[in-house]
Amino acid sequence: MQNKIIYLDNNATTMVAPEVVEAMMPFFMERYGNPSSMHDFGGDVSHDVENARHEVAMMLGADHDYEIVFTSGATESDNMAILGTLQYYKDKKHIVTTKVEHPAVLNLCRQLEREGYLVTYVPVDREGNLDLDFLFDSVTNDTAIVSVMYANNETGVIFPVEKIGAFCKQQGVPFHVDAVQAIGKIPVNVNTIQCDLLAISGHKFHAPKGIGVLYVRRGTRMRPLLYGGHQEKARRPGTHNVPGIIGIGKAAELVIQHLANTEEVNRVKRLRDRLEDGLLTQCGNAHRNGEKNNRVDNTSNIGFEFIEGEAILLYLNEKGIAASSGSACSSGSLEPSHVLRAMGVPFTSAHGSIRFSLSRYTTQDEIDYTLQVMPEVVNSLLEISPYWDAKTKKGKPITELAR
Amino acid sequence: MQNKIIYLDNNATTMVAPEVVEAMMPFFMERYGNPSSMHDFGGDVSHDVENARHEVAMMLGADHDYEIVFTSGATESDNMAILGTLQYYKDKKHIVTTKVEHPAVLNLCRQLEREGYLVTYVPVDREGNLDLDFLFDSVTNDTAIVSVMYANNETGVIFPVEKIGAFCKQQGVPFHVDAVQAIGKIPVNVNTIQCDLLAISGHKFHAPKGIGVLYVRRGTRMRPLLYGGHQEKARRPGTHNVPGIIGIGKAAELVIQHLANTEEVNRVKRLRDRLEDGLLTQCGNAHRNGEKNNRVDNTSNIGFEFIEGEAILLYLNEKGIAASSGSACSSGSLEPSHVLRAMGVPFTSAHGSIRFSLSRYTTQDEIDYTLQVMPEVVNSLLEISPYWDAKTKKGKPITELAR
Repeated sequence: MQNKIIYLDNNATTMVAPEVVEAMMPFFMERYGNPSSMHDFGGDVSHDVENARHEVAMMLGADHDYEIVFTSGATESDNMAILGTLQYYKDKKHIVTTKVEHPAVLNLCRQLEREGYLVTYVPVDREGNLDLDFLFDSVTNDTAIVSVMYANNETGVIFPVEKIGAFCKQQGVPFHVDAVQAIGKIPVNVNTIQCDLLAISGHKFHAPKGIGVLYVRRGTRMRPLLYGGHQEKARRPGTHNVPGIIGIGKAAELVIQHLANTEEVNRVKRLRDRLEDGLLTQCGNAHRNGEKNNRVDNTSNIGFEFIEGEAILLYLNEKGIAASSGSACSSGSLEPSHVLRAMGVPFTSAHGSIRFSLSRYTTQDEIDYTLQVMPEVVNSLLEISPYWDAKTKKGKPITELAR
Repeated sequence: MQNKIIYLDNNATTMVAPEVVEAMMPFFMERYGNPSSMHDFGGDVSHDVENARHEVAMMLGADHDYEIVFTSGATESDNMAILGTLQYYKDKKHIVTTKVEHPAVLNLCRQLEREGYLVTYVPVDREGNLDLDFLFDSVTNDTAIVSVMYANNETGVIFPVEKIGAFCKQQGVPFHVDAVQAIGKIPVNVNTIQCDLLAISGHKFHAPKGIGVLYVRRGTRMRPLLYGGHQEKARRPGTHNVPGIIGIGKAAELVIQHLANTEEVNRVKRLRDRLEDGLLTQCGNAHRNGEKNNRVDNTSNIGFEFIEGEAILLYLNEKGIAASSGSACSSGSLEPSHVLRAMGVPFTSAHGSIRFSLSRYTTQDEIDYTLQVMPEVVNSLLEISPYWDAKTKKGKPITELAR
């Protein structure tokens, strides 16, 4: 068991599916032509690129294949969606987003504030649910774009994007959805959401790193982020990342298959629940972060009070289990997660919060091994915790924690 | 011979080297961790990413590995270099570039003109050589950046970037080099050039598509193009394209080896010369576009007067030979190449110009087959050309060509 990694960090990145690697392989050394070339050796490849585009369009329920724009990943897609819209609507200086977005949206918004934009960060409640009325009240005539994530990367909590989409459509305000953590886990349909823009990242659903998509609804007004060749109708120039595109197309096909397989979808959910219920039962200081039911099925965020998340992760690492605290994109920072802070999770717990994220490749053996390891890790850390009284088996009074 | 493609379009894109594919493979299904993750499964991958960065730094002669920023390709690198510099020096509104740049620079500059920037496009002479004095005279106190390509993608002509670098350094003006077509063909050294920024693209030197680099000299002042996570010291956020990075690192290692192998470098040059001399001798209407000596060794641009380049390419395509007219990024356009127009190549010849671009995988058999095929292709097209008098074996008077 220890030789093979137990990978419970699928919200950070995923294994590339074998079928995806197989589909990509011919495009490195055999069919390596440039799809923009005149000759068949390149031109033939463009058919494969278009087939991949079609698969992605199918996965998202898009009306037209050309609404799919290939990018280098979700950070680019999010930046392109927001900056491209702002560049078009230059007179509008207000952005509505949430407090718990990914850094690709949050850090961009902070930069835009420095450039003179007004940004409203909609709050969430203790369960991580969005304050929808707050959002509705925030939109004004000056609002250039509303940008909201579909599912939170840390807690898995799902936001009511359909309601926001209907509202934005009625208000005539462009609506961008960061669907990175929803894709492959729940059905994502751009027409049900009624969004204008939607970002996804290949490597979160078993396609390779370095490829993403921005869905751009027909008629959406925006400017490109990059200028150059005519690729992607000049919306995203640069030689097509052919293997990446073929990979994301195949991964989209597999997502469609996976989500149609109710038994398999439920299996992942059962494993997540088995892990979560086990941890909450066996570790006295554990509680769930995020609403229990309104979540994607693969994610469990558990706060272990009075101990440090980093220490838990180091122990788990030694045992061959990969999990995470917060997002990989924020790692290295000692600050507790901005998502848990926005939810009002207390310091004593936010610091000891661990995200377990499963995939369709996760097995029951892996979950059971994790359940066997975690309680002893947690207990050994509690024993040396300055915030924990081993005699009374309770946390020390909060005044002692002040610093 | 006909079953295998004869690929003479290596300036458009290249085959991924077998060693590169081999190096990348483990990072899809085995070592798929996110290098930004806390756990060893991800963290270990970051060592490989840093090794790749080091190889690229070595290839470019950079002083520090951290001067290498991984991007999605040269279009992004070029855009990031120019826009990032302009964003920092907001009060400077003048850009100096050349008439023969790649669309990634030219189309960006055209967009910047629409936004109020003044752009000087330095001309080239009939041989494709840059008017260096014109460039020197163009730079003013208002110049934010000078952006010049190292080697032209269509003709292979090399620009005197060292002289421009020394001048820019003396003037205190940031200097960006688009080295996409130089890399792997001639030694590229950022310190010899004295550039502040330099863009390269993986897929032009046997790394995969979808990965590029922007060299950013220590102390260079610029803003990022994208905002998000902390990756690449927040200069280029987004999950690392690990397989792509590993691939470009390995390809850089192979470039260093290749350029150190004088015999092999000369072999490519001899093949290019064999092809060019053969065509110029055998086809009465053929002449070289671009200075003979001041070129990268793999490129030959030949104008075949009075016939259409597209027709030549179609015939070659049927014979299993892939070549191109102009750049793949401009294909689909019926306009003759902006590079040849800037050189003053006459219409009757610019329209019939073909770029042959070799690689270290090109063989003498492939060149000899091409030399066998081309004269009959050219002659059969001349026979049906409205601009050619079959009896006199001369072009018709230019007045008849007016339209």
